[in-house]
Amino acid sequence: MSIRVRVWNENVHERTSELVRELYPDGIHGALAAALLGHGFADVETSTLEQPEHGLGEAALAATDVLVWWGHKAHGDVSDAVVERVVKRVWEGMGLVVLHSGHFSKPFKRLMGSPCALKWREAGEVERVWTVNPGHPIAEGLPRHFDIAQEEMYGEPFSVPEPMETVFISWFEGGEVFRSGLTWRRGAGKIFYFRPGHEAYPTYRDPNVLRVVANGVRWAHNPAPAWSDVTAAPNVPVDKAPSKIVAKGASLHKPGEGGFR
Amino acid sequence: MSIRVRVWNENVHERTSELVRELYPDGIHGALAAALLGHGFADVETSTLEQPEHGLGEAALAATDVLVWWGHKAHGDVSDAVVERVVKRVWEGMGLVVLHSGHFSKPFKRLMGSPCALKWREAGEVERVWTVNPGHPIAEGLPRHFDIAQEEMYGEPFSVPEPMETVFISWFEGGEVFRSGLTWRRGAGKIFYFRPGHEAYPTYRDPNVLRVVANGVRWAHNPAPAWSDVTAAPNVPVDKAPSKIVAKGASLHKPGEGGFR
Amino acid sequence: MSIRVRVWNENVHERTSELVRELYPDGIHGALAAALLGHGFADVETSTLEQPEHGLGEAALAATDVLVWWGHKAHGDVSDAVVERVVKRVWEGMGLVVLHSGHFSKPFKRLMGSPCALKWREAGEVERVWTVNPGHPIAEGLPRHFDIAQEEMYGEPFSVPEPMETVFISWFEGGEVFRSGLTWRRGAGKIFYFRPGHEAYPTYRDPNVLRVVANGVRWAHNPAPAWSDVTAAPNVPVDKAPSKIVAKGASLHKPGEGGFR
Amino acid sequence: MSIRVRVWNENVHERTSELVRELYPDGIHGALAAALLGHGFADVETSTLEQPEHGLGEAALAATDVLVWWGHKAHGDVSDAVVERVVKRVWEGMGLVVLHSGHFSKPFKRLMGSPCALKWREAGEVERVWTVNPGHPIAEGLPRHFDIAQEEMYGEPFSVPEPMETVFISWFEGGEVFRSGLTWRRGAGKIFYFRPGHEAYPTYRDPNVLRVVANGVRWAHNPAPAWSDVTAAPNVPVDKAPSKIVAKGASLHKPGEGGFR
Repeated sequence: MSIRVRVWNENVHERTSELVRELYPDGIHGALAAALLGHGFADVETSTLEQPEHGLGEAALAATDVLVWWGHKAHGDVSDAVVERVVKRVWEGMGLVVLHSGHFSKPFKRLMGSPCALKWREAGEVERVWTVNPGHPIAEGLPRHFDIAQEEMYGEPFSVPEPMETVFISWFEGGEVFRSGLTWRRGAGKIFYFRPGHEAYPTYRDPNVLRVVANGVRWAHNPAPAWSDVTAAPNVPVDKAPSKIVAKGASLHKPGEGGFR
Repeated sequence: MSIRVRVWNENVHERTSELVRELYPDGIHGALAAALLGHGFADVETSTLEQPEHGLGEAALAATDVLVWWGHKAHGDVSDAVVERVVKRVWEGMGLVVLHSGHFSKPFKRLMGSPCALKWREAGEVERVWTVNPGHPIAEGLPRHFDIAQEEMYGEPFSVPEPMETVFISWFEGGEVFRSGLTWRRGAGKIFYFRPGHEAYPTYRDPNVLRVVANGVRWAHNPAPAWSDVTAAPNVPVDKAPSKIVAKGASLHKPGEGGFR
Repeated sequence: MSIRVRVWNENVHERTSELVRELYPDGIHGALAAALLGHGFADVETSTLEQPEHGLGEAALAATDVLVWWGHKAHGDVSDAVVERVVKRVWEGMGLVVLHSGHFSKPFKRLMGSPCALKWREAGEVERVWTVNPGHPIAEGLPRHFDIAQEEMYGEPFSVPEPMETVFISWFEGGEVFRSGLTWRRGAGKIFYFRPGHEAYPTYRDPNVLRVVANGVRWAHNPAPAWSDVTAAPNVPVDKAPSKIVAKGASLHKPGEGGFR
Repeated sequence: MSIRVRVWNENVHERTSELVRELYPDGIHGALAAALLGHGFADVETSTLEQPEHGLGEAALAATDVLVWWGHKAHGDVSDAVVERVVKRVWEGMGLVVLHSGHFSKPFKRLMGSPCALKWREAGEVERVWTVNPGHPIAEGLPRHFDIAQEEMYGEPFSVPEPMETVFISWFEGGEVFRSGLTWRRGAGKIFYFRPGHEAYPTYRDPNVLRVVANGVRWAHNPAPAWSDVTAAPNVPVDKAPSKIVAKGASLHKPGEGGFR
């Protein structure tokens, strides 16, 4: 079964910075989409901030198995309604791969329930990515460590919930460390955060980085049917209880009444 | 050091239902506060929905080590600004004990990043609470299982993130099960959810239930100083890097400029 | 790629009890292997205790992607050398599906590092299995709950390490609960424990139970190449350090000397 | 209530190496015990390998709330019977703080169920320890990062089970990273692994390191009564079932017969 991937990019730096445009003439989304096609994904779409509903309408999301997210400068411009739609799809089972500055994106913060803050420095220093979970599917085909010649530094503490798995940790030339590959589940949705990808450097041309993104998409895919009632809180009436019981005692809810939210 | 506890209650059922008022003449908050005093806590305050800022102003929260939360009918009436304040205090280290229908409270949903939905039935059936983690501080002094003669049923799936620890699981007469005691951390804050406590029954007069609440408060207390910069994302300039580096390559951020949110 | 499955069974009850022989004329291993073939697995082998090396020699294990384990009466007869071999293969990436009384099998206890104890009762009572993680691949195609008309009871506390994921919880007619579907990782190996399967009842003819086993095998499969040096503790000499350093200070290890174990 | 701490040390390097003897004239155990007394612990004992039962007889362990473990050269000389005794006490609730080369000690490997392997280099390089979980009790009073001027390098992958919490991560001058502060639970016992402490350097004179050890001991203490039946697998007869049932169907166990192990 083909995995339907959608790469979302705010696509702002590419239009405002000559430097970024030269690095990514087709946008970061374009570079990532091309790389995914090269990694054997057959069904890859892109969406950007400036599109209606940011290119994330109901139909687009319903047709997305895994969403890749890159945002930075314009987190605040993403509409809350779209964020809720994305989040609900994750709960239902859509995979989510959040890249780099996406740590502060609305959907990621919403799903983590924590600040998702960190330290940073833009100095073009070496980032060395270490695989700490070599048997993990996201590490497939990667060396035990690889260097990115120039990257922005992100430093701990990274205020996210304790992850399900720590896959990568980065070492920085300037002396910091960062948990750069982490996984979580929310509802039926698998979430992978991957650190590298500052827009001022050619990170998304690095074969190791692109392989991690591709592996992450594959890992985040949940082939199960959508958990469509994940937000429902159904009443189970007495006569539908799996074991026969008789109602007794006081009652505040009227028969058939919904619960409170 | 004395733990400063605050019990928050929406205090709506107590004013609108004769039944609930008879069960809890001092309100659910009053019953819980009295029980905590009886369990040796010396510093217990209460706050309710109808108070200014719901009794959760900056000063009140700053003076709270552990917040206990009971809400049901009026989740939607809790102001978003207050919710953000509560959530930030949890990230900084305030403990949070969420009771029963508080699974759908705004602060809990916000911290979980998931729907927090479940099944339910109000039939006054037996709930049997099983300790699955007998050495856990929250289980201290409790029997391996205890019955609550009449309770509302909550059934799985309970759509919360995989917990740090599962402390209790409930068996219901009507045939369902529920993970009724779960823990998480968000930032420096410890969170405990405990299921029992439907307002139509005298659950908060049950010594076992009250002991769990008291244990939960004690466990959730983080004596560390507040992690006050938990939401900050500071820049670390090149000359402050722990290991000496020289900036190289392109740069998009101007010196001293803040990061994007 | 075809998943190479091996079903291990101690195969003792089948030879000593008329009752069990009638339920499983081809042995529990035979019943499980047939079911897996029926679920689309093409490459299914079986091994039993009485075979040389219990049918788990180096070659057999090297050709196994996922091992299913059923044992009960003869846990103590499994050779420690074979146990270490199985455990090492799990660390390298072989999946392990442990069934029912296998909670006390040597490989499972060895991988958990905990007692793996529980309560039990053989009374032919109803077990109701609840899905608590509906989007999980192991729950694929299963109803939200299903009954097994007659089963042995296992009750909490189940003294295993906190799992990676809780997939199923069982409700028992006699009043107990049990976390009946749990996952862990050890090294590159994925481990799934599934509770039902007492030899005195036709549990492994139940389509829901067999589907869980099949799903579990599929989930436990790690397609990555074996993490063959998972137990190695290599020295990284100074001249091979990823960043250039100069050795300084005292030293106790001689160049080229191995570490201590 | 006073925490009864016992520091175990193999005490071999101190007797065979002039260098180590000069660093730790009272042994590593002596240095750690003195530091713990200085951190306010009133009840600190030491035990060493050469003592009868390695100083870890039944009575000694029964009187120990938290055990600190340092071993390296002589892991293999620790008797398996003593290891099982230590492990059982951890399951019952004794805390365990494992230091540095203790990653390959028998009790730690036994409790982890995984290889506990890593990379290493003895080059006297800088280790920078980063706090990734600043609100955690084990990080109390520590700076966000601190340097150890000379240490042995340990590098990832560290083949331990995914921890409950990651408290510290180390950066090494030579380019590696390591999760240097990790926690787990096994049964009722809390386990903390802390990386620094190579015998060739004065690491256990470093105030930050000693504070982490002291915090770790405090954190690992479980004040609950021992979970003394943690390894028991009791039968619950039909007439003792919490909910009334009638036995039905076949049975293989005779009444009163124990389960199989």
